[in-house]
Amino acid sequence: MQPARLVVMSMLVLLGAGSTASAFEDKDIIDYREHIMVTLDEQTAALGMLMATQIPPDNLAAHAEAIALTAKQALKSFEPKVQGGESKPLVWEQWADFSERMNSFAKKTEALAVTARTKGQDAMMTEVVDALSCKGCHDVYRNKK
Amino acid sequence: MQPARLVVMSMLVLLGAGSTASAFEDKDIIDYREHIMVTLDEQTAALGMLMATQIPPDNLAAHAEAIALTAKQALKSFEPKVQGGESKPLVWEQWADFSERMNSFAKKTEALAVTARTKGQDAMMTEVVDALSCKGCHDVYRNKK
Repeated sequence: MQPARLVVMSMLVLLGAGSTASAFEDKDIIDYREHIMVTLDEQTAALGMLMATQIPPDNLAAHAEAIALTAKQALKSFEPKVQGGESKPLVWEQWADFSERMNSFAKKTEALAVTARTKGQDAMMTEVVDALSCKGCHDVYRNKK
Repeated sequence: MQPARLVVMSMLVLLGAGSTASAFEDKDIIDYREHIMVTLDEQTAALGMLMATQIPPDNLAAHAEAIALTAKQALKSFEPKVQGGESKPLVWEQWADFSERMNSFAKKTEALAVTARTKGQDAMMTEVVDALSCKGCHDVYRNKK
C-alpha cells in the first residue's frame, strides 16, 4: 500500500468511519463511468465504420479488443451504487438484471474480439450485431440527454 | 476480397482511376481518427483518476491495455494524408517526425500496459507521465478547438 493511501485509511479509522464509508467521491464515480461509456461509443462507432467498409480494415482486431476491455471496465464502474449522470436509479434497483446484461456484454465482446483476430471481418457480421446491441440496455437503464 | 469490394475496385479500374484514388471518403477518414483520439482522451482521463486514487484500481491494467491498443489505432488512422479536423497540415508536412512520435507513443504505452499487468500502480508513476505526454504532440500538430 502507498504511504499516502495508508495515511488516508488510518485517518478513516481514527474518524470512526464504518465499513460502508467510501474514500471515493460520488462525482468522481459518475465521471469515471462516463469516461468508460464514451469510450464504448467511440470505439463502437469506429468499428462500425470498418464493418461498413468506410475505412480500411487494418484496425479491426484492435477495435474489437478495445471494446472487450472497455466492456469489462464498464461492469466494474457501475458496482458502486452511486446514482446520477445518465443512469436511471433502476440500474441498482434491478441490479441482478443489469449486472447479468453487463456480464453478457463483456462475454460477447470478448468472443467477438477472438473472431476478429482469428477469422476477420466477414465472419463477424452476425456476432457484431448481437454483441453490440447497446440500445437494449440504454432504453431501459439510461436517461436521455 | 469481398465481392462488393471487388466490384468497387473493378469499377475504379474501368474509370481509369490512378494509383492515388481512394475508395474512402475524406470526411469518414477525419471522423474515424477523431473517434480514436476521443477514445484516448477518455481512457487517459479514466486512468488518471485511478493513478490519483480517486477511483479503486480494479481496472488499472484494462485502461493501460486499452490505451496501448488505441495508440496503435491512432498511428494507422493518420496514414491517409487527409487534412482537416483538428490536425494541422504539419502532420503530413513533417510526417517523419509525426510518425516517429506516434510510433514512440505506441511503444511506450505498450510497455506501460505490461508494467500495469505485472507490477501494478505504484510502479507506473514515472512511466505514465512519459508515455502519456500527449501535450507535446498536441502543441505542435493540433489546432485548438
